[in-house]
Amino acid sequence: MAQLLKGPEVAAAMDETLAKEIEALKAKGITPTLNIVVVGDAGPSMAYTNGAKKTAEKIGMGFELKQFPEDMTQDDFIVELKKLNEDKNVHGILIMRPMPAQMNEDVIKYVIAAEKDVDCFNPLNAGKLMFEDPTCFPPCTPTAVMEMIDHFGIETAGKNVVVLGRSMVVGKPAAVLAVGKGKDATVTICHSKTKDLDKVCASADVLIAAVGRAKMVKASWVKPGAAILDVGINFLDGKMCGDVDFEEAEKVAGSISPVPGGVGSVTTRVLAKHVVKAAKQLNGLA
Amino acid sequence: MAQLLKGPEVAAAMDETLAKEIEALKAKGITPTLNIVVVGDAGPSMAYTNGAKKTAEKIGMGFELKQFPEDMTQDDFIVELKKLNEDKNVHGILIMRPMPAQMNEDVIKYVIAAEKDVDCFNPLNAGKLMFEDPTCFPPCTPTAVMEMIDHFGIETAGKNVVVLGRSMVVGKPAAVLAVGKGKDATVTICHSKTKDLDKVCASADVLIAAVGRAKMVKASWVKPGAAILDVGINFLDGKMCGDVDFEEAEKVAGSISPVPGGVGSVTTRVLAKHVVKAAKQLNGLA
Repeated sequence: MAQLLKGPEVAAAMDETLAKEIEALKAKGITPTLNIVVVGDAGPSMAYTNGAKKTAEKIGMGFELKQFPEDMTQDDFIVELKKLNEDKNVHGILIMRPMPAQMNEDVIKYVIAAEKDVDCFNPLNAGKLMFEDPTCFPPCTPTAVMEMIDHFGIETAGKNVVVLGRSMVVGKPAAVLAVGKGKDATVTICHSKTKDLDKVCASADVLIAAVGRAKMVKASWVKPGAAILDVGINFLDGKMCGDVDFEEAEKVAGSISPVPGGVGSVTTRVLAKHVVKAAKQLNGLA
Repeated sequence: MAQLLKGPEVAAAMDETLAKEIEALKAKGITPTLNIVVVGDAGPSMAYTNGAKKTAEKIGMGFELKQFPEDMTQDDFIVELKKLNEDKNVHGILIMRPMPAQMNEDVIKYVIAAEKDVDCFNPLNAGKLMFEDPTCFPPCTPTAVMEMIDHFGIETAGKNVVVLGRSMVVGKPAAVLAVGKGKDATVTICHSKTKDLDKVCASADVLIAAVGRAKMVKASWVKPGAAILDVGINFLDGKMCGDVDFEEAEKVAGSISPVPGGVGSVTTRVLAKHVVKAAKQLNGLA
């Protein structure tokens, strides 16, 4: 049986470190604070928002939920966003998406201050990621995968890391993170157009599944002993499951993250880590 | 013997298209114009600058070389750069690097207007590339590789494209371009830390060599029939050569770009293409 890569274990370790860092910052008069911004119906983002709030309370981080009416104009929203950009007591800003139809996200993403853009909405952060600029905020989900890899000591240098999925928010940034200095993996990105997808996945020492298809990765897609990081969040017959057929794959893999209880549990901690980093950078402490 | 992927053939085809586009823009009162900016000794960049100038003259594009003294301060340079950013008659700006030691490129790259940054110096353009934003300017060299692939009808969809090298200016952006919509390749990025580098390269249907090591890629690294795009520019015994051992590899490959006479011949055309694109975008014509 494969080793279970338990997200809550990573989250707990990160909470401890973050709580200490936040305490130290508070002693300097700085309370790292996250603002989550919701325009319109807060329902769909409730679970995420509540999770982030709970994490914030646990580690002593400031948290504020900004709610704006569904029919707010884009111009009015930009005025409010700029206030948050300039507010010295706000260090991280996360805008829940999709936004209502009257909001052009391609405009708004350039308005959010890159220095407070803790989940890589502003393309400037994606560019910094490509250039390995240490001040950047890569998207939280692929960064959570790297936190898992670090925590469990999964070797990546010179190993074959296969990323299944080429989305802007997970697949591509995960590939860039894994090939970069420090991780030094040989990275393959595969997707719906890939031929012999099963064989490409079966060449992976580390498989990052981020394709959004329930139980797509079968046991035959897994190299014996491989580490599997499952980023998928799907629902099958009303039950949450990942992109990997867990029951099958765990018989072959060396280690595997479950869904739920895997990468997803780490994402809000990465968000918090980015808020702390932003607070330091904005105050000239990093 | 492999088909020769001749850069000048691609360049000639691009010149023809670009000349027509420039003529049409001139009829509207717009002369797409490139400014190359050199601080200090122009010697090392002379070959590139002259090549760009020659291309510009051939296709009717405006060209200006701005030279500043070696001992110019960074503040003074930024004042001049901002003038170019605001000058309505300048559409593309290329700053030759490395700059003298008193210039902090990590500061200057954020000053150059992203809309005129035709060779992806500003990280914003790298971010737009990751998000597949059609207004972006990817770096000229990997874009030249894609122009070669398009011109010669090299199939990439679902094929294994292997990028040898993970630099910010060629390897990583080449991988992002090849995996994106339209190219749809399965992309592997490999580098000095990769195990069995020869075998990884030998799995490539399309091999993009961008590692900067003379004749590193041997015949045994090449899959029979593969297409090879050699980005390397190295010197061995005073003779220019690529990253691929051309004499050996051409016996195995299906097609191969020589050095010189390959990708390098296309780069200044991509630069010109970006200037034309910038001129259109800046005038609301794209």
